[in-house]
Amino acid sequence: MLDQISAADLTIDDMRIAHERIRPHIRRTPVMTSDYLNDLSGAQLFFKCENFQEAGAFKVRGASNAVFGLSDDMATKGVCTHSSGNHALSLSYAAGRRGIPCNVVMPRTAPKAKKDAVRRYGGTITECEPSTSSREATFAEVQARTGGEFVHPYNDPRVIAGQATCSAELLEQTDGLDAVIAPIGGGGMVSGTCLTVSNLASETAIYAAEPEQADDAYRSFKAGHIIADDAPKTVADGLLVPLKENTWHFVSNHVTDIFTASEQEIIDAMKLTWKYLRVVMEPSSAVPLATILKNHDTFRGKRVGVIITGGNVDLDKLPWLNG
Amino acid sequence: MLDQISAADLTIDDMRIAHERIRPHIRRTPVMTSDYLNDLSGAQLFFKCENFQEAGAFKVRGASNAVFGLSDDMATKGVCTHSSGNHALSLSYAAGRRGIPCNVVMPRTAPKAKKDAVRRYGGTITECEPSTSSREATFAEVQARTGGEFVHPYNDPRVIAGQATCSAELLEQTDGLDAVIAPIGGGGMVSGTCLTVSNLASETAIYAAEPEQADDAYRSFKAGHIIADDAPKTVADGLLVPLKENTWHFVSNHVTDIFTASEQEIIDAMKLTWKYLRVVMEPSSAVPLATILKNHDTFRGKRVGVIITGGNVDLDKLPWLNG
Repeated sequence: MLDQISAADLTIDDMRIAHERIRPHIRRTPVMTSDYLNDLSGAQLFFKCENFQEAGAFKVRGASNAVFGLSDDMATKGVCTHSSGNHALSLSYAAGRRGIPCNVVMPRTAPKAKKDAVRRYGGTITECEPSTSSREATFAEVQARTGGEFVHPYNDPRVIAGQATCSAELLEQTDGLDAVIAPIGGGGMVSGTCLTVSNLASETAIYAAEPEQADDAYRSFKAGHIIADDAPKTVADGLLVPLKENTWHFVSNHVTDIFTASEQEIIDAMKLTWKYLRVVMEPSSAVPLATILKNHDTFRGKRVGVIITGGNVDLDKLPWLNG
Repeated sequence: MLDQISAADLTIDDMRIAHERIRPHIRRTPVMTSDYLNDLSGAQLFFKCENFQEAGAFKVRGASNAVFGLSDDMATKGVCTHSSGNHALSLSYAAGRRGIPCNVVMPRTAPKAKKDAVRRYGGTITECEPSTSSREATFAEVQARTGGEFVHPYNDPRVIAGQATCSAELLEQTDGLDAVIAPIGGGGMVSGTCLTVSNLASETAIYAAEPEQADDAYRSFKAGHIIADDAPKTVADGLLVPLKENTWHFVSNHVTDIFTASEQEIIDAMKLTWKYLRVVMEPSSAVPLATILKNHDTFRGKRVGVIITGGNVDLDKLPWLNG
């Protein structure tokens, strides 16, 4: 059982099993390009648009793998989790499709768009303060009360195996990549990317992109051990959480480098993507492009896969407009 | 030569020749779906996302067919046109790819995003007042001065044959449609849709969608002859122009019905699409969904192709936000 193994035991077959299991519940999202953004970056960028998943985020992959991998017995009490947003609504979506309860702990500061989506998919929200300590305390209470199966947003091999299916599609949809880059928060997407790319395209470099104002993964990577902040603050609200042992395994073993971007660089990259790629994606998803545009020497002339992780945005509060 | 024939002479082979000719210059855009919008409409909606063309609009199809169909001799003086926006930038894009000049007349009120894109693609803009009469007078001067080949934004069989390639792809990408609906301004996309759908899927109904505040096509359709307004005003700035004889041929012979929507209904549908389909598209492209949501009896239970015509939006002036 995948929930009893650690990340180090995951094989590429776990990704393949996950892909077969979740195929009826996810979309094979398109890969998009923009001549303008290619000119601007000096690279060839291939954007894997996970914002086009029905739940608006790649996290539906890992959540679906966990939910549909449960035995009928385990599934009866449903699932529960804590999440700054997209895992909460992805788990609600997957649980709703299986017809089992889903309880989620979310920071009260999480975007309204994400809370609304959780409720629309049938999930039940308990709010906490926007800090790791408050989230963990509130979650312990919810889990004890409901008895649901805990599906961690990223520190769970079932979830990592699910996220790994994204870059499997990206590799199929492109004709060879020199590099892949994804945003890093807790490291679930980056870990899944490492699992797939290190096995199926070992010559492809793997980069992670992080907000300067929540740069714990960057500092961990440079220090050689996990460093966690309690309450970082950034417009990239999907990237607030720290690495854990299962994602640290992949980040420390397979990531080539981690780049950071300022708040303004992230907002600029977000607006560029909306304008020239014409996709609605959230600030977290703009961090990779922001770092590509400031690290020309690394990416110039390269074929680069860029994972757009989610598209759940409050359209009444766009970061480049006042209010 | 296609520019010497009338719309009535166009055959499905003209569409096929156009598709072969323009294939290197256009994208086969994806068809997207949303469970939420399906639930809301009671129909199965298949959105053909022409906003993802490099130039941000379906009009690159007709413009490319006209530009790349010119003999080398005809091409030397370049092309010229008048357009409220997307045809201008699409013609500039196509002319730029062929390396020939492009002169366009645009209303001074056209969105800045569209004017910027024309210039980026190498087109030269001459501004006019936002009325049909001013546009035609200004254009006569520009054409006389440059001697470029006139490519009308829609009343041109070469352009109609190019636009027809969009629904050819849509039919290939879906598994049978009960209806197709597209916005109508001058009628170029609707005419191309009629050419393809009446030949390749004659059982599929063809609908057009128009702003109430620029409803000349609706009134023409009901009256049985072309009615033109001089200066209509609507948030759907791509739909200000009147039908002409070549598009009237298709509209009067093949369209099942034309529906209209209010400004608020258009803005609401635009925001819904950004939120749930997560695509950046312009107000004109929201008119079909707006009319689907108010004509439940026509669309309930049907498989409906919806053409999202363009995605060139001023991101600093979104219609659901003040300013």
